[in-house]
Amino acid sequence: MVEIYKKSLFDIPKDIVYLDGNSLGPVLKGIEEESHRVISKEWGKKLIKGWNESRWMAQPVRVGNKIAKILNAEKDSIVLGETLAVKLYQALSAAIDLRKDRSIILTDSGNFPSDLYVAQGLIDNQSRDLKLKVVDPEDIKSSIDDSVAVVMLTQVDYRNGRMHDLDSITNLCHSCGAIMLWDLAHSAGAVPVYLTKSRCEFAVGCTYKYLNGGPGSPGFIYVRPDLIKNCSTRIRGWLGHKYPFDFSREFEQADTIDVMRVGTPPVIQMSILEKALDIWEDVSMEDLREKCIELSEIFISQVEKRCPDLELASPRDPFLRGSQVSFAFKEGYAVIQALIDQGIIGDFRAPNIMRFGITPLYLSENDILTAVKCLEKILKEGLWNSERFLKRKLVT
Amino acid sequence: MVEIYKKSLFDIPKDIVYLDGNSLGPVLKGIEEESHRVISKEWGKKLIKGWNESRWMAQPVRVGNKIAKILNAEKDSIVLGETLAVKLYQALSAAIDLRKDRSIILTDSGNFPSDLYVAQGLIDNQSRDLKLKVVDPEDIKSSIDDSVAVVMLTQVDYRNGRMHDLDSITNLCHSCGAIMLWDLAHSAGAVPVYLTKSRCEFAVGCTYKYLNGGPGSPGFIYVRPDLIKNCSTRIRGWLGHKYPFDFSREFEQADTIDVMRVGTPPVIQMSILEKALDIWEDVSMEDLREKCIELSEIFISQVEKRCPDLELASPRDPFLRGSQVSFAFKEGYAVIQALIDQGIIGDFRAPNIMRFGITPLYLSENDILTAVKCLEKILKEGLWNSERFLKRKLVT
Repeated sequence: MVEIYKKSLFDIPKDIVYLDGNSLGPVLKGIEEESHRVISKEWGKKLIKGWNESRWMAQPVRVGNKIAKILNAEKDSIVLGETLAVKLYQALSAAIDLRKDRSIILTDSGNFPSDLYVAQGLIDNQSRDLKLKVVDPEDIKSSIDDSVAVVMLTQVDYRNGRMHDLDSITNLCHSCGAIMLWDLAHSAGAVPVYLTKSRCEFAVGCTYKYLNGGPGSPGFIYVRPDLIKNCSTRIRGWLGHKYPFDFSREFEQADTIDVMRVGTPPVIQMSILEKALDIWEDVSMEDLREKCIELSEIFISQVEKRCPDLELASPRDPFLRGSQVSFAFKEGYAVIQALIDQGIIGDFRAPNIMRFGITPLYLSENDILTAVKCLEKILKEGLWNSERFLKRKLVT
Repeated sequence: MVEIYKKSLFDIPKDIVYLDGNSLGPVLKGIEEESHRVISKEWGKKLIKGWNESRWMAQPVRVGNKIAKILNAEKDSIVLGETLAVKLYQALSAAIDLRKDRSIILTDSGNFPSDLYVAQGLIDNQSRDLKLKVVDPEDIKSSIDDSVAVVMLTQVDYRNGRMHDLDSITNLCHSCGAIMLWDLAHSAGAVPVYLTKSRCEFAVGCTYKYLNGGPGSPGFIYVRPDLIKNCSTRIRGWLGHKYPFDFSREFEQADTIDVMRVGTPPVIQMSILEKALDIWEDVSMEDLREKCIELSEIFISQVEKRCPDLELASPRDPFLRGSQVSFAFKEGYAVIQALIDQGIIGDFRAPNIMRFGITPLYLSENDILTAVKCLEKILKEGLWNSERFLKRKLVT
């Protein structure tokens, strides 16, 4: 077993325990040099020639192939670009067009709200009748029937870490003739995913969480290879054209995954991501998952022992959880601020959820114990009950 | 008059004359330090706290305000994000919804093909009858009538630099009750634009050309302030929500220009752009335009004198041209490759257009003369007629 703990490859400030990799991954060593190289050697020296000589144009699929390895997806089935919300819009558009005779997009209340907004925005502007049906996560399976055009789910709940069984839901979806679209924002780099094996039609995700691509790193989209060729497109940007540099007036869509490209890719941000993905080359997702569960179990048992006022908000069964453990507490916001003040970085989601990302690439058992002890102290001594922690800021 | 020529503020390789700022602007000094600062000091040290403490969340509007100054637009009327194609999709969606009783989107054959693809992709998926009408650029004015819902034009033609009169077309458009949408990809930082004065409803553009934001720097969108509040949205990402961090299930759209945000902004790329925009603080667009015309006139007269085989493809009247001069030549592709080989960087657009961007911030009269002499030599000695220049590469 290759060592999973690779903290020496990261540039994480010494005095902190970072439990927020589920929101924004930390900086890997070599990222600054890569950014320097792209700016000075490629953009600076090659200027416009960078598009050819530095292979910027091929980068979105090249980086997609690195992500495909992590997700056990086919080569040339994933492309990067824009943001997760845009990629979701593209995937959902294509998905509904594969089931024109059906009217329901099924999702759950555990989905990231943005996914619901994107779906509703799309539905409100269709020529056909479509309806977004939002059920409780535990009712998803029983709600899949042959009225459903598309099942659109985020595998891991952003608040409590509850995880759907990707394979069994995809199978059920297919047995009812519906199209499966997974949002893997909290899965990619966190839990093992076998995209090819699942036979799901579409998947999307982001790269700034567990994949450590940096703030605002682009989104990705997966299309099952047999569907790429006739994939329908709503947002037809020039780079989705089969021959973009012919500049023809008619849109002839690419017959490769490039069809899901839209505009000019963010080369600098994409280069940083490409570099950040190197760390995954010898990571076994199964080993990482095993370690993640081990650390999570320690975290949960220690918190429950030392901080009895907190209530576990995540599923207790590790196989029903992603890579994140959440606890509910009425003054959770202030507690998280007090923790951050002590160098323990978690985050908060309304109304009362304290989130802790368990990322074995850079978290040790010792880090977990340090975090719990700090949490215990903050709660026992009421340190959170201070004006500066109670006042809400924008993001966490 | 403040000096327009500021080449000392750029990091342009010594041995080249860069005539391709219309495609990708060069690196400004300080950009590398800025990228270093964002990666190590903000992402690296502050991690997730960067969203608050480093004001990443407010950056898309803050940078928009810098662009608003260049385009003489209202404060808080421009926001950055994703790519030009996505922003165009958003703008055109909102525009057609303002004229639900009309059926024509009018554009011209000089528009960037991507804009036509985006429009057609949108039209093909509407519940109402809409038609894209593409006329010749000289027929635009006579084609605006009260069947037209939206006039969608790129002000400066990407091939020949032909420039539409933004104000008179906008006025005509409004006199027929249509909505005006300008693509300023080749205008922003190239020619004076008075967005507020024009009263146009929407504008979009990119930031990696004359604004020097770097490869894949994000797109921008302008919405006339009186229209922002009830602007319709197709792509409803979480950051277009009035209170994104409430994570409510219903989409309540922002009543500010944030409504045109979609997903998580590319912070590193955006920070580089923000820094690159500093140079515009004391640039008068009128002075820059005057200098651009002066240099362009020298370029045209010298090329016509020394290279009689080339045919001017741009309008001869400088007031009908943007900041780019194009010449047609059957073997234009090979000539451009031979020029690049000599350090004179222009580019090529099919079928036979050689493009030269005239950017007075970093081009002197001497540069222009050097370029023409090199072009003359390549043509007179037939240096372009070589295997290595004739073989087509992807981009230029």
